[in-house]
Amino acid sequence: MLDMLCFTGISKIPYSPSAGARDVLCFKHYNASEVLHGRTMEDWLRFSVCYWHSFCGTGADPFGFPTLHRPWNEGGSDMDIAKKRLHAAFEFFTKLGVRYYTFHDRDMAPDGSTLEESNRNLDEMTDLALQLQKETGVKVLWVTCNLFAHPRYMNGASTNPDCHVLAYAAAQVKKGLDVAKKLGAENFVFWGGREGFHSIYNTDVAAELKHMANFFKMAVAYKEKIGLKCQFLIEPKPKEPCKHQYDYDAMSVIGFLKHYGLDQHFKLNIEPNHTTLAGHAYEHDIVMASVFGMLGSVDSNTGSPDLGWDTDQFPMDIRNTTIVMKTVIEQGGLQPGGLNFDAKVRRESTELEDLFIAHIGAMDAFARGLRNAVRIIEEGVMSGMLKERYLSFTEGIGQKVAEGRGTLEELEEFIKQNGEPKVTSGKQEKYESIFNHYL
Amino acid sequence: MLDMLCFTGISKIPYSPSAGARDVLCFKHYNASEVLHGRTMEDWLRFSVCYWHSFCGTGADPFGFPTLHRPWNEGGSDMDIAKKRLHAAFEFFTKLGVRYYTFHDRDMAPDGSTLEESNRNLDEMTDLALQLQKETGVKVLWVTCNLFAHPRYMNGASTNPDCHVLAYAAAQVKKGLDVAKKLGAENFVFWGGREGFHSIYNTDVAAELKHMANFFKMAVAYKEKIGLKCQFLIEPKPKEPCKHQYDYDAMSVIGFLKHYGLDQHFKLNIEPNHTTLAGHAYEHDIVMASVFGMLGSVDSNTGSPDLGWDTDQFPMDIRNTTIVMKTVIEQGGLQPGGLNFDAKVRRESTELEDLFIAHIGAMDAFARGLRNAVRIIEEGVMSGMLKERYLSFTEGIGQKVAEGRGTLEELEEFIKQNGEPKVTSGKQEKYESIFNHYL
Amino acid sequence: MLDMLCFTGISKIPYSPSAGARDVLCFKHYNASEVLHGRTMEDWLRFSVCYWHSFCGTGADPFGFPTLHRPWNEGGSDMDIAKKRLHAAFEFFTKLGVRYYTFHDRDMAPDGSTLEESNRNLDEMTDLALQLQKETGVKVLWVTCNLFAHPRYMNGASTNPDCHVLAYAAAQVKKGLDVAKKLGAENFVFWGGREGFHSIYNTDVAAELKHMANFFKMAVAYKEKIGLKCQFLIEPKPKEPCKHQYDYDAMSVIGFLKHYGLDQHFKLNIEPNHTTLAGHAYEHDIVMASVFGMLGSVDSNTGSPDLGWDTDQFPMDIRNTTIVMKTVIEQGGLQPGGLNFDAKVRRESTELEDLFIAHIGAMDAFARGLRNAVRIIEEGVMSGMLKERYLSFTEGIGQKVAEGRGTLEELEEFIKQNGEPKVTSGKQEKYESIFNHYL
Amino acid sequence: MLDMLCFTGISKIPYSPSAGARDVLCFKHYNASEVLHGRTMEDWLRFSVCYWHSFCGTGADPFGFPTLHRPWNEGGSDMDIAKKRLHAAFEFFTKLGVRYYTFHDRDMAPDGSTLEESNRNLDEMTDLALQLQKETGVKVLWVTCNLFAHPRYMNGASTNPDCHVLAYAAAQVKKGLDVAKKLGAENFVFWGGREGFHSIYNTDVAAELKHMANFFKMAVAYKEKIGLKCQFLIEPKPKEPCKHQYDYDAMSVIGFLKHYGLDQHFKLNIEPNHTTLAGHAYEHDIVMASVFGMLGSVDSNTGSPDLGWDTDQFPMDIRNTTIVMKTVIEQGGLQPGGLNFDAKVRRESTELEDLFIAHIGAMDAFARGLRNAVRIIEEGVMSGMLKERYLSFTEGIGQKVAEGRGTLEELEEFIKQNGEPKVTSGKQEKYESIFNHYL
Repeated sequence: MLDMLCFTGISKIPYSPSAGARDVLCFKHYNASEVLHGRTMEDWLRFSVCYWHSFCGTGADPFGFPTLHRPWNEGGSDMDIAKKRLHAAFEFFTKLGVRYYTFHDRDMAPDGSTLEESNRNLDEMTDLALQLQKETGVKVLWVTCNLFAHPRYMNGASTNPDCHVLAYAAAQVKKGLDVAKKLGAENFVFWGGREGFHSIYNTDVAAELKHMANFFKMAVAYKEKIGLKCQFLIEPKPKEPCKHQYDYDAMSVIGFLKHYGLDQHFKLNIEPNHTTLAGHAYEHDIVMASVFGMLGSVDSNTGSPDLGWDTDQFPMDIRNTTIVMKTVIEQGGLQPGGLNFDAKVRRESTELEDLFIAHIGAMDAFARGLRNAVRIIEEGVMSGMLKERYLSFTEGIGQKVAEGRGTLEELEEFIKQNGEPKVTSGKQEKYESIFNHYL
Repeated sequence: MLDMLCFTGISKIPYSPSAGARDVLCFKHYNASEVLHGRTMEDWLRFSVCYWHSFCGTGADPFGFPTLHRPWNEGGSDMDIAKKRLHAAFEFFTKLGVRYYTFHDRDMAPDGSTLEESNRNLDEMTDLALQLQKETGVKVLWVTCNLFAHPRYMNGASTNPDCHVLAYAAAQVKKGLDVAKKLGAENFVFWGGREGFHSIYNTDVAAELKHMANFFKMAVAYKEKIGLKCQFLIEPKPKEPCKHQYDYDAMSVIGFLKHYGLDQHFKLNIEPNHTTLAGHAYEHDIVMASVFGMLGSVDSNTGSPDLGWDTDQFPMDIRNTTIVMKTVIEQGGLQPGGLNFDAKVRRESTELEDLFIAHIGAMDAFARGLRNAVRIIEEGVMSGMLKERYLSFTEGIGQKVAEGRGTLEELEEFIKQNGEPKVTSGKQEKYESIFNHYL
Repeated sequence: MLDMLCFTGISKIPYSPSAGARDVLCFKHYNASEVLHGRTMEDWLRFSVCYWHSFCGTGADPFGFPTLHRPWNEGGSDMDIAKKRLHAAFEFFTKLGVRYYTFHDRDMAPDGSTLEESNRNLDEMTDLALQLQKETGVKVLWVTCNLFAHPRYMNGASTNPDCHVLAYAAAQVKKGLDVAKKLGAENFVFWGGREGFHSIYNTDVAAELKHMANFFKMAVAYKEKIGLKCQFLIEPKPKEPCKHQYDYDAMSVIGFLKHYGLDQHFKLNIEPNHTTLAGHAYEHDIVMASVFGMLGSVDSNTGSPDLGWDTDQFPMDIRNTTIVMKTVIEQGGLQPGGLNFDAKVRRESTELEDLFIAHIGAMDAFARGLRNAVRIIEEGVMSGMLKERYLSFTEGIGQKVAEGRGTLEELEEFIKQNGEPKVTSGKQEKYESIFNHYL
Repeated sequence: MLDMLCFTGISKIPYSPSAGARDVLCFKHYNASEVLHGRTMEDWLRFSVCYWHSFCGTGADPFGFPTLHRPWNEGGSDMDIAKKRLHAAFEFFTKLGVRYYTFHDRDMAPDGSTLEESNRNLDEMTDLALQLQKETGVKVLWVTCNLFAHPRYMNGASTNPDCHVLAYAAAQVKKGLDVAKKLGAENFVFWGGREGFHSIYNTDVAAELKHMANFFKMAVAYKEKIGLKCQFLIEPKPKEPCKHQYDYDAMSVIGFLKHYGLDQHFKLNIEPNHTTLAGHAYEHDIVMASVFGMLGSVDSNTGSPDLGWDTDQFPMDIRNTTIVMKTVIEQGGLQPGGLNFDAKVRRESTELEDLFIAHIGAMDAFARGLRNAVRIIEEGVMSGMLKERYLSFTEGIGQKVAEGRGTLEELEEFIKQNGEPKVTSGKQEKYESIFNHYL
């Protein structure tokens, strides 16, 4: 049975809409069961806690040693600690009130000295996870394999110049897919942190891309073989740790998938902090992936626009959460994906309660975003303006163009008949003001 | 017959390999007819002068008025000036010793008050251009239509919310294709400077992308109808003037083309200054486009890595030109594309001789790059190291993976048999040192 | 008497706090005479309209021709137009309800063919300006000289390698100071858009900095001579149009002023879009300038964090306006400075009403920021947490350090006595959540 | 006596100017005793190896575990390892042929559980260091205290909100200064990696800056008390690990030092990878610091312009090394500072010989830069062009301005007499071409 020993001073986080500024251990906006635009908030938001940042993270950074000393990380063997950690996590999920979590294979169970030992560790730990899932109702949003931390992967996993390393990654993914099936994961994520290069001089890009594509094809084949139903997701990131990662951004991944005939088998897991590192606006890859029918899930976090590395901060900006939720609602929701908090408390936020405060702040930020987005969509002012703006494509020559039936010749003829088009204001500031109205 | 009236103090630029530091009006490295690695330098480099920067540019910037007062831009009607300008340009091409030039429709001939008048202007000017081409042997590397400067295009051309504007752009492209055929252009470029958005709030991205794809399809159909043989090229740029342009970078365009089934009809024209604005290394998009078989041509220029806008400087960095030429040689050359100097003299470089100095400096930089690249390729030290590095994919399990015949199961079995892979140094600094050896 | 002919469909903008999403021609938050934290909103906010963007701007950008065709810019001589434009501006100020405007000498009156003619134009125009100021009560927040647009300044004004150009700039500033006195300007701004370099190769940085300092000293001397009381302000910008501008950011200017003994004579005019271009967070230079006692005024605008050039957008982000106003209140206000909208409607926002909508949106954004900041300050939750955080510096060894009376020896002794400090959570997410509470 | 046990296959690196591409374990350009422009190469370049990257670095990064397993880091107690490591380092220094090294207190000797124990460790280790220095002639370029890695410093050292932490840092610096004296260090560096903030919400910037200044004053006082003669250096860095560091760039530090009256006691240690992270060109802070008489030393490394974090790569770009050495020669050298390789082999460069290859490549890059810079300076073409460019400031009105004796009135009079200045080309491309001539 689930131990409740780590967060002893904290009970189930309540919804207290009228709480004051000092009250940071309650939801002021997120009301899980409240129905908005036809679904509960819980169903729209599908929050997930990520296991590595919140339960494995130590606070170490490239310039400093660990600062986060967690009770569950101390005492006993590696497996003992792994179990304590899992109990702590389920205590946290339960008290916070989220239905999903995500993990890497190597977060869940310690790496062994051989593949077989690592797999046995994983078997034992996932037995416990399955039991705790059943007890609490918490589910796996996605599983992923850590193919980047072990030194063997320093030159890449599926893109390693040595096929022996690729083989190791393949074995690890095979096990990861088995685990996904066992735990009923709704998605499976590939993040290619070492799939790229530091120097073009020592890299055969063409070969590496082909190997990566073939690696994915093997994963698809095995998934189908074992009857695993979950959605495959690729998570783009432009750089870091590599100088360049092949999965640079949404469009890069879409181009890659289509080139290798893989686009029917994958969707994207978009992380806005990665999007901004690629030089785009916060919401950009979420919007683009959605437009191409490829938005599968969101790693809801944020960076600082003035920083050039991944800070994985908790998303607190209401403007951003409003745009994200507007996009999500417009595509009919994220299911089977969700909003996974791929975010970590700052290494200076050393208290256990900071873990709660951070998640609550972010969940409230998304709840406000959802409420705003619903108002925007239901009032229809912005969508009405947009419809008006593109009206010319619904009839006549515009309709022919929209349907792919036009020719240059007839469009030239149209101009000869109708002359210069009139200038129409884009009215960006009006749209911005109206958007602000809903914040 | 070609007037030679503008650059009166300057004769045909000679090759003077032993010239001193002060001598900037001669080539010290570029020797057009010299054969390297089986071709003349002229054939490897296929230099082109761009008409707009060097003959239409005024030196105006967002904070300042024109500084460049060219003799060919003064006196007479718009058409008189257009002709003087064309003569000046051919004088320049001839004295500089380049075989190609590139232009926008609206550089070549002034915009009229109607489409018909614009087209008549273009007819008259291209008659002259054809004559000057025949006299001098200079050819058109590519033509492009200016679908961004006129106010009608402020909200996009093929992605304009008003189909009337798209129709105007279509009429203009139809004429542009006719001109390309008339002048024997070897390529035709699409640069979508206004195909994108400033605000996601007022934009229907899905509709705009579909319209852009349909626009390209109409252009392909007309090209085939008139029997135009040139290569179609799309030139990626991430932003500026828009906040976001759909043709963000090489992979974005490849993704777009594949999604809409257009990839057989287009290659890419890569401009490194655009590549760096997209957050990549200088050579990145050239390498990626080449790997995907999509590198058609290069707009050889440079930006400053510390600046966030397009400065279109002349490329002077030997390291960069060496990497570019190594990629070009490895794919067998750029033909029918070339190295187009999409670069402008600084607005402070007000003398006519600065135009020559800048082009000569860049041509010499590329000539040095070519010489270096040939040595790297012919000595084979780097390629030998690379071959060794990926050797595991040429036999056994590696060969199966490379050929797409592997499975996760047999790779797992391989690990169970062979255990942990050995760690192999990536030796980046060694590659860098060896590369430096050739600079 | 003031003509009211340009914005005929628009009356004085009212305060309508309950207006709906579609209503964009009213204030929903800005209530000029409402008293908050001891002052009227008008007194805290000191809004100013900038003349160049809103009345001289054409919508041209580096890739496109003018799009904004204003009734006041057409018909008659340059001076006729200048007068119509000034009438239009005062109509706008009055209807919008702002008390201040800002301008460059060359916005106000057309450049003549000689300095003398330019000065006469300026005399005539400022006579009219003075009259309109009296009629309407609108005042000059600041005057500045345009020392960057004319070709003579392409290589710098006070840092030009040719002292003849510096002399011209000096003459222009002399006249500008006279105009500032005549019109009762409360501040005078120096923006060194061309004071910097494009290439270190052709630049003597040491000489240029000394010349710039001496130029400022001459301006201070003349200001004192004529008894001009206004505050001198330097506006930092890191780059654009130059590759590097000497007034890079707040700290660069502070370092420069202190090195040359000028810091008593200048404060800073901070523009957040410039701050973000320098790689800082939006509020950074406002905070730093305030900490050093150097925050004189704010050019309230915004850029897009994903763009690398100055977009001068209207500030619409409530989070940003809240932080700015919190800083402003904490330093006791900006007077004699203000919040100048150095912002322009997008070139696609071609309707006259867009000018109003943009300003209203920004004023409401600042009004919301002010209201939030007042609540944050008056509730005192955040300031109380901060006081607690730094408590150790109010007594004992901490007090000695704070007062500059400590030594390494006694601090070492303190450690020998007291050992390792305890770890204290920085609680960043708690601060962020509480800040969000007030948005 | 110095053990020579770690780099067994490698002897003293020779100078072999005619070696081929494959030969990477010899100098092709660096010839220590060769005299150029009046000094030996060794004296101009003053190379230093940094202890932490090359002897303590493990290859761990935020996404991966250690990859670099060094023989000197294994076996025995912490102090045993520390001694083996120091022997290995001196073996490396000697074989490489550099005269200087740099270290942090905590690199040299392991942290103890108390300050006293840490200090005893340091005493024992510096005894050994002193002995090895005497045996080999290798000297300390600079010492620095690690005030950022220990968790106690997570919220800052001299800017920590808790004075207890500041006291610990003070005690550590006191010991560091004693060590600097004992070992004859020629400089002492302060790098404020945690002196800044992650969130403006929880930070009292004014208080922190004052505390930092007072901390520096205590260090100056103690330095003078113990008669330590070395140069104090501050090393700017804009961000990372903090979101913002107070020592952002050269000008920020100069502003800070001047504000607090500390500028006579400090110079700057400029690291180009930090400069580029601050948004400047590679050479910018070296040039600016030199212009302000504040360039004390250089941490010669490089980043990748497309990456937003500190990669500390070995500097291999000849263009950059040429500009740096030109600046260094023009200010008469760096002594008592030097060129410290604050650079690390990539974590994928796992062989011991990679350490040599990387340093040799960088030393050769600087040797080529030195040779180029000497030719540029001795031929005088560029300096002659520059002198000509600023000629107007050597006589007449220009001289008065240069000497600070001008007035706005007489400059205006000059314009009234002389009218419009003539336009003079900045000739940037000519300077670039000539610079290229020397590469």
